Amino acid sequence: MISIFDQSLMGGLFGDPELRDILSEEKTLSRYIEIEVAYTKALGQSDAVNPDIATRAATAIESAQIFTDALHRASGVDGIIIPDLIRQIKERADPELHAAIHTGLTSQDVMDTALVLALREANSLLSQRIEAVGQSLGALHAQFGTHTMMGVTRMQDALPITVGDRIDAWGMPFDDHQTRLTELTPRLIRLQIGGPVGLRDLPDGVAQALAATLDLPLPPKAWHSMRDGLAEYASWLSLVSGTLGKMGQDIAMMALQGREISLSGGGTSSAMAHKKNPVKAELLVTLATFNATQLAGMHTALRAELERSGAMWALEWMLLPQMIAATGLGLNTALSLLKDIKDLGAPA
Amino acid sequence: MISIFDQSLMGGLFGDPELRDILSEEKTLSRYIEIEVAYTKALGQSDAVNPDIATRAATAIESAQIFTDALHRASGVDGIIIPDLIRQIKERADPELHAAIHTGLTSQDVMDTALVLALREANSLLSQRIEAVGQSLGALHAQFGTHTMMGVTRMQDALPITVGDRIDAWGMPFDDHQTRLTELTPRLIRLQIGGPVGLRDLPDGVAQALAATLDLPLPPKAWHSMRDGLAEYASWLSLVSGTLGKMGQDIAMMALQGREISLSGGGTSSAMAHKKNPVKAELLVTLATFNATQLAGMHTALRAELERSGAMWALEWMLLPQMIAATGLGLNTALSLLKDIKDLGAPA
Amino acid sequence: MISIFDQSLMGGLFGDPELRDILSEEKTLSRYIEIEVAYTKALGQSDAVNPDIATRAATAIESAQIFTDALHRASGVDGIIIPDLIRQIKERADPELHAAIHTGLTSQDVMDTALVLALREANSLLSQRIEAVGQSLGALHAQFGTHTMMGVTRMQDALPITVGDRIDAWGMPFDDHQTRLTELTPRLIRLQIGGPVGLRDLPDGVAQALAATLDLPLPPKAWHSMRDGLAEYASWLSLVSGTLGKMGQDIAMMALQGREISLSGGGTSSAMAHKKNPVKAELLVTLATFNATQLAGMHTALRAELERSGAMWALEWMLLPQMIAATGLGLNTALSLLKDIKDLGAPA
Amino acid sequence: MISIFDQSLMGGLFGDPELRDILSEEKTLSRYIEIEVAYTKALGQSDAVNPDIATRAATAIESAQIFTDALHRASGVDGIIIPDLIRQIKERADPELHAAIHTGLTSQDVMDTALVLALREANSLLSQRIEAVGQSLGALHAQFGTHTMMGVTRMQDALPITVGDRIDAWGMPFDDHQTRLTELTPRLIRLQIGGPVGLRDLPDGVAQALAATLDLPLPPKAWHSMRDGLAEYASWLSLVSGTLGKMGQDIAMMALQGREISLSGGGTSSAMAHKKNPVKAELLVTLATFNATQLAGMHTALRAELERSGAMWALEWMLLPQMIAATGLGLNTALSLLKDIKDLGAPA
Repeated sequence: MISIFDQSLMGGLFGDPELRDILSEEKTLSRYIEIEVAYTKALGQSDAVNPDIATRAATAIESAQIFTDALHRASGVDGIIIPDLIRQIKERADPELHAAIHTGLTSQDVMDTALVLALREANSLLSQRIEAVGQSLGALHAQFGTHTMMGVTRMQDALPITVGDRIDAWGMPFDDHQTRLTELTPRLIRLQIGGPVGLRDLPDGVAQALAATLDLPLPPKAWHSMRDGLAEYASWLSLVSGTLGKMGQDIAMMALQGREISLSGGGTSSAMAHKKNPVKAELLVTLATFNATQLAGMHTALRAELERSGAMWALEWMLLPQMIAATGLGLNTALSLLKDIKDLGAPA
Repeated sequence: MISIFDQSLMGGLFGDPELRDILSEEKTLSRYIEIEVAYTKALGQSDAVNPDIATRAATAIESAQIFTDALHRASGVDGIIIPDLIRQIKERADPELHAAIHTGLTSQDVMDTALVLALREANSLLSQRIEAVGQSLGALHAQFGTHTMMGVTRMQDALPITVGDRIDAWGMPFDDHQTRLTELTPRLIRLQIGGPVGLRDLPDGVAQALAATLDLPLPPKAWHSMRDGLAEYASWLSLVSGTLGKMGQDIAMMALQGREISLSGGGTSSAMAHKKNPVKAELLVTLATFNATQLAGMHTALRAELERSGAMWALEWMLLPQMIAATGLGLNTALSLLKDIKDLGAPA
Repeated sequence: MISIFDQSLMGGLFGDPELRDILSEEKTLSRYIEIEVAYTKALGQSDAVNPDIATRAATAIESAQIFTDALHRASGVDGIIIPDLIRQIKERADPELHAAIHTGLTSQDVMDTALVLALREANSLLSQRIEAVGQSLGALHAQFGTHTMMGVTRMQDALPITVGDRIDAWGMPFDDHQTRLTELTPRLIRLQIGGPVGLRDLPDGVAQALAATLDLPLPPKAWHSMRDGLAEYASWLSLVSGTLGKMGQDIAMMALQGREISLSGGGTSSAMAHKKNPVKAELLVTLATFNATQLAGMHTALRAELERSGAMWALEWMLLPQMIAATGLGLNTALSLLKDIKDLGAPA
Repeated sequence: MISIFDQSLMGGLFGDPELRDILSEEKTLSRYIEIEVAYTKALGQSDAVNPDIATRAATAIESAQIFTDALHRASGVDGIIIPDLIRQIKERADPELHAAIHTGLTSQDVMDTALVLALREANSLLSQRIEAVGQSLGALHAQFGTHTMMGVTRMQDALPITVGDRIDAWGMPFDDHQTRLTELTPRLIRLQIGGPVGLRDLPDGVAQALAATLDLPLPPKAWHSMRDGLAEYASWLSLVSGTLGKMGQDIAMMALQGREISLSGGGTSSAMAHKKNPVKAELLVTLATFNATQLAGMHTALRAELERSGAMWALEWMLLPQMIAATGLGLNTALSLLKDIKDLGAPA
């Protein structure tokens, strides 16, 4: 395993089984199949192909045994696995069904739409976690909000504030993050369907039927070469982890000050038994910096040339899943960290 | 001049007098004065100080002769110029007015609010330019949209498309960019007022009066240590320049193909008289990459620690103005480039 | 699997079994054990502990059965696995051996040194691949170097050049890359040993004996909070993949021009049978952009505060392995791409 | 002024007259002239043109009155100013001298070589400042090195160290930085000469004569499309500012701790008279993050396509001067900050 997100030994720190499942290859492959099945049914529903043929073809797609080794090999030639997936499906299907399989679609339609389905699941989870972080901060506020602590500006003690003031700075951006997610969703969670060069040259009703089945809005044009929805989403992920990073930085600095905060559950040292490292707070700083770094790449990928860019598309594959993972992990880590806080400030 | 944005010789390519004016030091300083005056008046309007004193103090602020050399020197000590600006103003004012000057404000209140005033002007200009780019693309669409050209996927000729299809990919994201700007504005264009540690410990009505005078919404808390509004805005700038970069990349690649596009106004070569370099198209790629790069820094700056971070705040000063400049220049360059297009595709 | 480097389905494109093995968790864990054993022996060799005790302790470390589930869990508390690893080893060892196990070391000594051991292996592999790319380019030069092609400056045909001229621009930087690797190696491949706060407070000869056993230079001080060797190395990785990216970009653009190059093995399209996508060339652009993006993070990690930064250290864990993987994959991909070139330019 | 490096008001913090002069437009233009003169003389020295003609042409170049407004305008068309500069020079020169002016050169030869001349000056200055920082750290070491302070790992007090231990972590990388600069210099400070497409198709001895006059090594090929020397240099700049950033972060955190360090000259607050902000320490963190951010762009620019990339070349113009400025400013700021340290740690 190259990525620490995928490693087992460090998985107590970096693991996130829920998100890992959403972003897994197994789920991705099953989304490809789900989309191909829905498309074949859409061909039937709109009478683009004989409905009976469509039904049989859908069954053939669903039941086709896929050899993943062949997909693996094909990825090295085609750069993607969809062509071989379709080849395998057709090979195992009655030739009279072939015209009802994938005809009019292109690989990117399937892959981008599968990504969108994954993002819909991921965002639901992230939104729940944001809500939970908000609740956790609210509970801290209720418990310690009226306590006083020293406000610190530019690394110097300034004037007393309340614990609630500092907690507000951790929590208030999350309301805006939820609003932002709601606002960007229609630009992100939408069907990709354009065919080979994006013309969406399909019989009447096919795209609509597919959109209905997948419960995805149908944008007026394919967005295969307009990647601003994804870049905006990546920005949102980085905003969320950035807010968490500020909270982590604050808590780590309070730990450094050695006053006004009491944390349980800190990390042990192999050499110094007395230490309680603010491991989770530090991790929030790490993850925020990680996402800020990746964001430059996701925005560079906006430069997707002409009708399809292999180079910039693959860059999204490399960057986006880890940004989601870092954001989700940050939220989980924050939840755990906030639970570790035993005391904040001093009674007024 | 260190930055190419500030250089004269290359100013035909990189210059943008309108934005340069909005972002100039002169305007910045006059916004500081404007805010201090408005604040002093707000103290009077809300009876926090004697209205007459407030009126006289406001006049004193407006009419104070400011020695910019002293501000320059003070910046090296204080890291900002507001403390010395206030010192100079008070020095030239009747001591009985001092309590009506800046009392209850902090430097960051003034500087962040001045930034917001600049952003409001800049965004109005950017939005107009986006509109103009949309109109220019619409005109191209009307003129050449039905022409055919070869669709290119993954750097290979694929299937014919219309010129209108390619233009759509250049233009459609701009509608979303305008929507995004509208959505993010309430999170960006808002008064910053918190005082030394953000408590906004002011007499009743002062903050409201200041907000009314400056015509800025008053958020429930100071956002001095919550920088997500600025990071989100930086993302938006990068989205706009990214869309322009995709258009520039496409046009540069069409120039490379040597077909389907005819451009006037290309750059001359010192060595090859026959060349017509697609200079403006290339510049759009440059500016998009520039902004994508800077964005990582603006999101790193989310990690503003405790009640005020000198380090991350100064990072915003370094990055954000140039991102705005790059975005504005990109829009101007695109407008000029689109005018240079003499032909696209071939009649169907 | 979150990272595409760790996925199976796309492994034909992104896989690299050799590097994957070097960077694997299994190897990492065995390097930890190797270092602990070597350290215990060093204690014995330098008479810091009784040699017989040291020998028995080394055997105890080597033979201890390690429960990886416990390491996984402990990572969530400690942020690292070394403390639990030592705990497990000691638990299974005769108490009289405990003082000969890890005493005087700290987790970072073990982890950084294990990283260095991995980098030594990885760099040997990367260097061989660079050499192979150079040979492959040399063979292309011998075959087609005297052919002519059109030189292209600023996306416009300029004047004829030879194929050899263009190949030189692909290949010449690799000689410098090898030189750079040789030059940076003493700043990278060196023992990390400092103990809890870097004081290296050890009996005479222990550090020297450990360095000798591991065949690593012993720097005058621990470098736990001086990370410039790693940031410099990350820059080198990005230089290598950047050179490959330029070659990939050139080849992809030649494919776009549809002249002067003939490639076998291009990717197939699920929708257009006639296409031969320059998948490998595009991937080189992807990987170069990926590494350039990550590099910002590795340089941000230079800001490792005080005597040990959990936040910036963990950032290195997230970024560096993937940069190595991207570089190694780029070299392999280039080797494969160069073999796919069937013709270049035209006989003079 | 868009960039804070070019602003006057904040120039007490961000100004650096020495570097500003080296990187100024005036110096850049005079370097262009210097190179054109040297080239014309080289044509004469190698008998490529009549020596007398060459002498007269050199005088014509040197004495030509250049209208900078015209250069400004031309930059908007050509993307560069050299073509118009040559046009102006020729216009003012006897036509029989024209063949001795710029013939065989291309704009990039002049601009890249002028950059190299600027970098040579800048690096000499940076190297001197690094030396001065080393001396300043050495003096601190001599004064306070044996004092004790608390070692801090992962934001927690660990075990006592000496002040000298912490200073070592600030200073030791600088020796390596000097070595790195020496090592990279031959890959950076070298003549660029290739002509229109890099063929260097010149009469015998011309390139050698030019190299001798400018005292620059002549590499075997033009490096116009091999930008690894510049990307490596940018990495070096970021390493230097990263080391300074670590020192700044440490000092800012010590100021936060409020113990073990006494600083004079801290920034004043407009609202809290008691504060002494560690402005210079914070600025070091800012500048390090700035350079780490820019570095991603400089490495992206390695993807310079074919024989000359307008897009990636212009990106270098935007990024590199500010990276040099940030590095130089960081060194100056560090020198000033170190002088402000009045006490460190406590006598043992």
